Amino acid sequence: MDMKTLEEAKDIFFGRFRPDRRTGPEEVSVEEAWGRVTAGPVFASMSAPTYHSAAMDGIVVRSEDTYGTTERNPKILKIGEEALWTNTGQAIPDGYNSVIMVEKIHQLDETHVEIRTPSYPWQHIRKVGEDIVTTQLLLSENHSIRPYDVGALVAAGVFSLKVWQRPRVVIIPTGSELIHHKNLRDPGQLQKNQIIEYNSLILAGLVRECGGVPIIYDIVLDQEEDIKYALEKAVDSDAHLVIINAGSSAGSKDYTANTIEEMGEVLIHGVAMMPGKPTILGVIKDKPVIGNPGYTVSATLSFQQFVRPLLLHLQGCKVPKVGTIKVRPTRDIPSKLGIEEFVRANIGKVGEKIVATPLPRAAGSITTLTRAEGIVRIPALSEGVSQDEEIEAELLVDEEEILNTVVIVGSHDVTIDIIGDEIRRRGYNVRVSSGNVGSLGGILALRKEACHMAGSHLLDTESGQYNISYIQKYLKGVKASVFHLVMRDQGLITAAGNPKGIKGLEDLTREDITLINRQAGSGTRVLFDYKLGQLGIEPDAIKGYGHDEFTHMAVAVDVLSGAADCGMGIFAAAKALHLDFIPMEREQYDLIMPSAIVNDPNIQVVFEIIQSNTFRERVTALGGYDPSKSGQFWMEVG
Amino acid sequence: MDMKTLEEAKDIFFGRFRPDRRTGPEEVSVEEAWGRVTAGPVFASMSAPTYHSAAMDGIVVRSEDTYGTTERNPKILKIGEEALWTNTGQAIPDGYNSVIMVEKIHQLDETHVEIRTPSYPWQHIRKVGEDIVTTQLLLSENHSIRPYDVGALVAAGVFSLKVWQRPRVVIIPTGSELIHHKNLRDPGQLQKNQIIEYNSLILAGLVRECGGVPIIYDIVLDQEEDIKYALEKAVDSDAHLVIINAGSSAGSKDYTANTIEEMGEVLIHGVAMMPGKPTILGVIKDKPVIGNPGYTVSATLSFQQFVRPLLLHLQGCKVPKVGTIKVRPTRDIPSKLGIEEFVRANIGKVGEKIVATPLPRAAGSITTLTRAEGIVRIPALSEGVSQDEEIEAELLVDEEEILNTVVIVGSHDVTIDIIGDEIRRRGYNVRVSSGNVGSLGGILALRKEACHMAGSHLLDTESGQYNISYIQKYLKGVKASVFHLVMRDQGLITAAGNPKGIKGLEDLTREDITLINRQAGSGTRVLFDYKLGQLGIEPDAIKGYGHDEFTHMAVAVDVLSGAADCGMGIFAAAKALHLDFIPMEREQYDLIMPSAIVNDPNIQVVFEIIQSNTFRERVTALGGYDPSKSGQFWMEVG
Repeated sequence: MDMKTLEEAKDIFFGRFRPDRRTGPEEVSVEEAWGRVTAGPVFASMSAPTYHSAAMDGIVVRSEDTYGTTERNPKILKIGEEALWTNTGQAIPDGYNSVIMVEKIHQLDETHVEIRTPSYPWQHIRKVGEDIVTTQLLLSENHSIRPYDVGALVAAGVFSLKVWQRPRVVIIPTGSELIHHKNLRDPGQLQKNQIIEYNSLILAGLVRECGGVPIIYDIVLDQEEDIKYALEKAVDSDAHLVIINAGSSAGSKDYTANTIEEMGEVLIHGVAMMPGKPTILGVIKDKPVIGNPGYTVSATLSFQQFVRPLLLHLQGCKVPKVGTIKVRPTRDIPSKLGIEEFVRANIGKVGEKIVATPLPRAAGSITTLTRAEGIVRIPALSEGVSQDEEIEAELLVDEEEILNTVVIVGSHDVTIDIIGDEIRRRGYNVRVSSGNVGSLGGILALRKEACHMAGSHLLDTESGQYNISYIQKYLKGVKASVFHLVMRDQGLITAAGNPKGIKGLEDLTREDITLINRQAGSGTRVLFDYKLGQLGIEPDAIKGYGHDEFTHMAVAVDVLSGAADCGMGIFAAAKALHLDFIPMEREQYDLIMPSAIVNDPNIQVVFEIIQSNTFRERVTALGGYDPSKSGQFWMEVG
Repeated sequence: MDMKTLEEAKDIFFGRFRPDRRTGPEEVSVEEAWGRVTAGPVFASMSAPTYHSAAMDGIVVRSEDTYGTTERNPKILKIGEEALWTNTGQAIPDGYNSVIMVEKIHQLDETHVEIRTPSYPWQHIRKVGEDIVTTQLLLSENHSIRPYDVGALVAAGVFSLKVWQRPRVVIIPTGSELIHHKNLRDPGQLQKNQIIEYNSLILAGLVRECGGVPIIYDIVLDQEEDIKYALEKAVDSDAHLVIINAGSSAGSKDYTANTIEEMGEVLIHGVAMMPGKPTILGVIKDKPVIGNPGYTVSATLSFQQFVRPLLLHLQGCKVPKVGTIKVRPTRDIPSKLGIEEFVRANIGKVGEKIVATPLPRAAGSITTLTRAEGIVRIPALSEGVSQDEEIEAELLVDEEEILNTVVIVGSHDVTIDIIGDEIRRRGYNVRVSSGNVGSLGGILALRKEACHMAGSHLLDTESGQYNISYIQKYLKGVKASVFHLVMRDQGLITAAGNPKGIKGLEDLTREDITLINRQAGSGTRVLFDYKLGQLGIEPDAIKGYGHDEFTHMAVAVDVLSGAADCGMGIFAAAKALHLDFIPMEREQYDLIMPSAIVNDPNIQVVFEIIQSNTFRERVTALGGYDPSKSGQFWMEVG
């Protein structure tokens, strides 16, 4: 079967399962009605108010008895005969038809009051049906019931009503490599070639977000008969929709499409979208069966395109437009012609521009979804977008959050995460978005106005000073302020117990030692190369010098997994993974920002945090950090 | 205690219960984590992926073994020794460090493959920690957990986590006149001076909307000791917040403030807002206790101002901004100086303007909330807004709905409700907002561009023709198109069985007969006066001629309740309330609209409905309607 474009696939799928398809009605009590959708028009069973009542405190009278009363010619009414005391809300007794408010009455004695103006019929009376008249249309069909609709229902004597059933969605996780996390006492028990199953939990959450009820089946092995058995069970159940979620190992034989074809019909096999290409859309016994791709991001995006609209329609809900925002990419985003691409991006407002920095495109990377503020959609007919184009991004967070995002890019440091966490802990409406592009990358991003601050620890090997000469060179013309964030220990990260007995950089030329390097433009690389130069060691003499990573943690992970024997990085990374560490330098890590924004409220929140004791304590607890100068202004450049 | 302005009251209340107050943490499993808010930073317990794995189908090799390979100098690798078959996702066996994709391999026989390019180390390998590195910050404190966050948690080996408890809110309904709807077998059982309690259901829904857990107590009588007992129980429970909701009878003695003062402290008694003035804000044993006003709209608005922000803070959530829209009122809205007023309004886009028509301000009218699209806030320091001013309205529906609202004002007719219901039933993203201002009011609203269509049945008593002469007179200069909606029966509505033996208009001058009239400018009034004129009956000779109502239903209700003996109205109104009906005229009810908008898509949806068989069937079922010309174009005027 040919791959279809996203639009074609939608046309076919929603042509088969049309927007007027519904789950079917069920009767619920008003107590359960909130958030449900009416399965038919609802009419009032009674009027509200149900009786004429006083709208004021005072007396009820017959208006005829008050005619002719004037200021000069007051009238005396006898309580119990011509007038009765009443309170707001009390029923008007038979035979009376008007209320005089207490402020207009002069009480003469126990049984007599004087009035000085006449009262007209129905004065200050809330009449039957003033709010609701029996038989009137109260709520239309397909109306989402809000809290005050519930009140109106009860007020109108409607104590139960028909709503659309919540769509029930069976989710079948498949994959022989999958293991349910409940079957692991702790994560350390995980074996090689085992993957914890979590797509079904994500899909269940997405189903609930759409008002549906997820039913997660046990994990099904990659065997045709097992898949068929699970699908049969699902299709014959009372579910309205079935999602079968392929295992992550796309290489294992894919039985899903075959089985659906055998049991029913495959409408679509492959959609020209990325991530999400291997989506299968089918139908068995008139029930929609969706073969969702195995990679998490693919599964999520495919769900949003096909399952979400259907779940909403099934309950009579409209599909709300996804919020969008105009953004400017901080770099060109190339894309494959003929494929609609969904690029997750960090988005924030820098100066007057909303900037979007694309995140890695790996479809298996769940953090590209959790970290993203939005998704840039690149149409199939485009080969990508350039950084000069304004484009639209779909929002994953509130627009207000975007406007209050502080964008920090540059060198990677754990303390940036702590800033973000402390801001949220204190309840500030400010979000920190951080991108790891190396120290020099950060300064260049400042120059492009793609971030608010750059985190940098670039050593000028001639002056011995950090950052300043780089700012002078790469930020020419921009007045920039430099603040200390932390001092931190750099050194060689080695395996736990240092099995190869590495003592220092001199050992890196040994035949049995493989290095993992950091990327060019990172402060760590500058420091490393400087140290090698001091010792007169040639890069060519070091095995692995040409292989680099983008973060301290990645270096530490390579050492942990044995992919390398050592690499330069900060103590905190070694400590986190229980590795050994040979300290070599206490370096300076600064935050650089345009002087013009230093007093912006959101930036001031960052200062409040990094000057706080809590921040210092948390940073100290990481080890290898010295926060004594955190938040101190160092110098203005330019 | 002095009444405070809304801002003062908020300052005092949120000064006492500050935004960093939380419910307290509880541990939940990841399965239950969706929608909850983290009660601390969450760090990864393991890396993801947990092992180096193939990113492609193909073979794993040692990159060293492939060096020197070129197009001209291919290399043959022995399967099982120099190379092993692999699939995407499979672990890389120890000792191997590179993957060559299957497309680049030429298989020679069972055990030998040929390659033509070298492979570099870590080629096509997804490395440990590529997505998540153990110990990294996964989610900040006070983060609302989305479906993919749940996935990230499981992927990082976090199977349970601390979240803020959902705030528990005790709701105490008070009022001796209240009755729980469960205690009524059917609404007809309701006695005079009994009111069905529904505020607590509305408040419960609002609490749930904020992520809280409502606990509704039994109805408490208006007796000091009962109120005190209920408050003590609530305060000593594990609830985080207590709402005590006064009965609707504001005239009965108000024990709430006294009891709170006795048991704790009243912070605020009376807020200069309308509705919502009688709000009481207090504290007992460090728990917030809110005395919510009795009138439904007051209770709702007071909740939104004081309880909602607190409930969100208690869970570490930000208070999202309420969506607003700029609107132009269709008439002046006067307001009392010194009181911040919340005026519910029908809002729709007519031409280029977003227009807002204020709904009745009665605080007891629940339908002013259910029917409103938004709320216009008039500041305390203003005496109102004029129809020339652009003002801001807070949205109660999506902005998209506002843009797709068809505003129909004019004469009241039930079939307008049917149009709205049919549109929703068919799943169209169009909303009908209808306002009852009489036929002439509708034509004048068209002139002011305050609506899309006017519903009108104005008889020209000279020509015998409906509507046209009125349009010519009042819509001068506007090209207007007139379409038939329905023909309907007008007549005298009398009590069931017609106990006074009314035979026709001639009887209206009888001493024992009281009329209820319709307002001037309504089509029914024009018809009525015309008929009286034909018979030579003087209005002065009719008892009740000067007392009028705005809708057919209101007239019918007055007759039903005995407030009047008869009134002119349509058959459908009489039938709905099981009243008698003396037919007098089959009149023509038309929809008038500017010709310029006839082809607008939303207007075309209205035409689709009124020309449909379903519409005709539903209208016919009402009785007294003839839909044979429904949707027919009649004439263009101007």
